[in-house]
Amino acid sequence: MLKLYYAPNTCALASHIALEDAGADYETVRIDFASAEQRKPEYLAINPKGRVPSLVTDRGILTETPAILVFIAQSFPRAALAPVEDPFALARVQAFNSYLCSTVHVAHAHRVRGYRWADEPEAIAAMKRKVPQSVGECFSLIEREMLQGPWVLGSTYTICDPYLFTISQWLEADGVDRAKLPKVHDHAERMLARPSVRKAMADETGAA
Amino acid sequence: MLKLYYAPNTCALASHIALEDAGADYETVRIDFASAEQRKPEYLAINPKGRVPSLVTDRGILTETPAILVFIAQSFPRAALAPVEDPFALARVQAFNSYLCSTVHVAHAHRVRGYRWADEPEAIAAMKRKVPQSVGECFSLIEREMLQGPWVLGSTYTICDPYLFTISQWLEADGVDRAKLPKVHDHAERMLARPSVRKAMADETGAA
Repeated sequence: MLKLYYAPNTCALASHIALEDAGADYETVRIDFASAEQRKPEYLAINPKGRVPSLVTDRGILTETPAILVFIAQSFPRAALAPVEDPFALARVQAFNSYLCSTVHVAHAHRVRGYRWADEPEAIAAMKRKVPQSVGECFSLIEREMLQGPWVLGSTYTICDPYLFTISQWLEADGVDRAKLPKVHDHAERMLARPSVRKAMADETGAA
Repeated sequence: MLKLYYAPNTCALASHIALEDAGADYETVRIDFASAEQRKPEYLAINPKGRVPSLVTDRGILTETPAILVFIAQSFPRAALAPVEDPFALARVQAFNSYLCSTVHVAHAHRVRGYRWADEPEAIAAMKRKVPQSVGECFSLIEREMLQGPWVLGSTYTICDPYLFTISQWLEADGVDRAKLPKVHDHAERMLARPSVRKAMADETGAA
């Protein structure tokens, strides 16, 4: 059985939703960031990067959201979560998810994880101040150029959708005005109407 | 014919090498970062993110290195650049490349692109100071946990190899001591012995 290591309010939610979408047989293990469980030897043995998500499979452990999402799509073809047989169409899925992980999530991370990139408290505070702008610019581009609607890549739901939804959940805390992002807002509402999304979110918040 | 937009000394080199590895019929277009050509309307029409690489295909334009690399591997199956039919094996390829784009390249980018994440010159200088440490830690993890040798994922060359090679070219400028990274160093030497790598590098430096 697949086993997903996650922490609430992290990008692991994207993989969690995709596992639900796929109808996968899986269990979850919660990692407690408050006690820095992700930095303890037990978890570092699973993922030496000390981050979530990690997905334990019968062949080994996988990390990194874009990799896990394609793995789920390819392992559960009947769920049709990505056009894995079409190189161009798959590359569009991957380009969107790669932008999320390498640019959007990174911009967001400067709000609470600035210590990764500078030591001085003033510099960390300066990074924090710019997050509304940097994350806001990313989402303006998504709103204007990328999110086709109703789903990210148009009429078909893909593994781009849970990932965008997950990161869009952080907009308010990042100081970005969702009212200026009507397509992103509608997308989130559409996601919240899906049983898979509600199930994964309820699992993570203990509201199940 | 495929058309790759690149700039020298950027991550576009990874896609350039992979096109050579694949035996693809392609041409290249150089974007001049010194005159900020990547921010001009002509290029933004190709890639609204204002970055390289961009790959023009007969079905549309692709961006983001991890996406382009899998596209090349999947489009030229005879070159066997990635195990695209095996979900777990492909996910390992993708996890490595995702780590490069979202963590390693990002750590590096704080040396010269700190303005993306803070406005104050002092904060930008603070980010720059931490790059030897942050990039160094990433490469220590690669050396210790990820790079199996002789190629990234073991005995078979994949699209992880040109990407790691490309980013490892920046180590000296990032202030990281390559002597402490013998496996990474050997990997770079092994890459430099490949005609595909020499061809792509010579094209980019005009030394062809």
